[in-house]
Amino acid sequence: MRSFFLGGRTVRLSGLPVEQRRTVMGGVPRTVDPNGDYSVGQMYVQEYRLAAPRHALPILLWHGGGMTGSHWESTADGHVGWLWLLLRAGYDVLVCDAVERGRASWARFPEIYAGPPLFRTREEAWHMFRIGPVGGYTTDPLLRRAFAGQQFPVEAFDAFSQQWVARWPDHEPLTLEAYDALLAWVGRAIVIGHSQGGGFAMAAAQRSARHVAAVVAIEPGGVPAAPTRTLAPHLIVWGDHFEPPSPLCPHPVWSSYRAMADAYCAAAVRYAGPTNPFDVFDLPGLGIRGNSHFPMNDRNAPEVAALIVDWLARCAG
Amino acid sequence: MRSFFLGGRTVRLSGLPVEQRRTVMGGVPRTVDPNGDYSVGQMYVQEYRLAAPRHALPILLWHGGGMTGSHWESTADGHVGWLWLLLRAGYDVLVCDAVERGRASWARFPEIYAGPPLFRTREEAWHMFRIGPVGGYTTDPLLRRAFAGQQFPVEAFDAFSQQWVARWPDHEPLTLEAYDALLAWVGRAIVIGHSQGGGFAMAAAQRSARHVAAVVAIEPGGVPAAPTRTLAPHLIVWGDHFEPPSPLCPHPVWSSYRAMADAYCAAAVRYAGPTNPFDVFDLPGLGIRGNSHFPMNDRNAPEVAALIVDWLARCAG
Repeated sequence: MRSFFLGGRTVRLSGLPVEQRRTVMGGVPRTVDPNGDYSVGQMYVQEYRLAAPRHALPILLWHGGGMTGSHWESTADGHVGWLWLLLRAGYDVLVCDAVERGRASWARFPEIYAGPPLFRTREEAWHMFRIGPVGGYTTDPLLRRAFAGQQFPVEAFDAFSQQWVARWPDHEPLTLEAYDALLAWVGRAIVIGHSQGGGFAMAAAQRSARHVAAVVAIEPGGVPAAPTRTLAPHLIVWGDHFEPPSPLCPHPVWSSYRAMADAYCAAAVRYAGPTNPFDVFDLPGLGIRGNSHFPMNDRNAPEVAALIVDWLARCAG
Repeated sequence: MRSFFLGGRTVRLSGLPVEQRRTVMGGVPRTVDPNGDYSVGQMYVQEYRLAAPRHALPILLWHGGGMTGSHWESTADGHVGWLWLLLRAGYDVLVCDAVERGRASWARFPEIYAGPPLFRTREEAWHMFRIGPVGGYTTDPLLRRAFAGQQFPVEAFDAFSQQWVARWPDHEPLTLEAYDALLAWVGRAIVIGHSQGGGFAMAAAQRSARHVAAVVAIEPGGVPAAPTRTLAPHLIVWGDHFEPPSPLCPHPVWSSYRAMADAYCAAAVRYAGPTNPFDVFDLPGLGIRGNSHFPMNDRNAPEVAALIVDWLARCAG
């Protein structure tokens, strides 16, 4: 295993005031000059290579919005993450922190980025991640209302919230450029993306078509413009609790995101064929009930991973 | 290997304006309500456990200011990082992203943190990391002036700058609390800290004395109040280019940081004994010349690691 950074560019700032700041414990203030060169737009990659991989192509794991690569390593309740399940399945795996997230670092605003990022509250995540209904979160864990049969380990929800990072939702072009650079560097790969990362994986299958051998988009949040040609094999995976909005049920926002993805699928499936399938797994429709927006963090994470590994064996060579 | 988050608390925000923001690619703006509960002050830990460790105690790797745990994984020029050298030496290793750095995430300001962070320019890093003289950095790599015999791989300096993250220099208490929590969780450990992390390791040896079996502080930036009792074994390591300031030579800031550490050593060594040594390795004095502020990233990183492993074998059981 090794890690490296990739993509991005140099930005030069000037005309900013020089500060006097104490920067070390017990030290005295020193001059800090913010004018100069910065690296901006890079991403962070952890590369895990097996001694004897059983598949020719590596898998890239692309996290969702407001997340980093950490949730592929371990689930929020401390179980083994998909990273390790995929390595055990014989794949080399590369885990990313996308531009501006986690170890990839972010750049100052308003001088480089236009403005401040968004942060996610636990209240929003509780329903956006479809753990429970809108208003189901309370600070007191004992009073929270989750969906019956919820696969997300609700006792680990606060621990899970420690993983969330700030995100700039208008920065898709920056992130997609870095992913293009990663794919060019890797050569050819399978991409498994979650949520925002699922949409990026679908975009990459169009932008970097010769580098993407297959796409697995887990609950894609956002999709590119509809395809007009044959794409690499795609698998779209959806969890549970997409019922129409009601006082108890989700979720106007997710209903609209899923409708966007459904429209994309309807356009893409016209170009699908035996070697280029465009498949959708609706987990409840397959008898797998209760999944949240984060199947790789849910109690049945190994079961969902096995479905995907099986699909890859059949459809991604 | 697994990862987890540790420490921190819940902060509730209220009274902030609700926004309409587009959050997914191709989507329409949705309501984003920033009022609610946030997790603040946690740290991120990657835990590497060997099947058959050859030492009873694990090593904790604590990075410096404006860094994350990534530089223990690989050097900036792509060589194997100290993480792997220490695992090969038979130690279990835990790598941290300190509070607010990298995957540990940071909190919004001015509502939770008081103000904006500091970012490091390449200009500042070039001399603060003692790669070359003040003013030795230029945007054009061919025109940069490095110290003769520099061990830092100067051709990888821009790649190295992709690792740097924002830092809040006034947040030492938050970070030290999270490190206390980590040490209590681990039970007992050896701590290797770099720069700001070296100062934190020295502070932890006082704050969490029964959990710290030994401290290796690589170029500590900042030190705690002078000790007044016997501490766990300490090793302080210094690189090269600490000559007094001159037009060509460093470095008023580092001279003052080193003087702070020297004063600490002078106080601590009075309480040292055969089982509690307080050692200082001046690398040039040992004939190892040209090291920057980042010996774990320098060309001779394996040589410096071997010195430390040897000291640990003699002094940390």
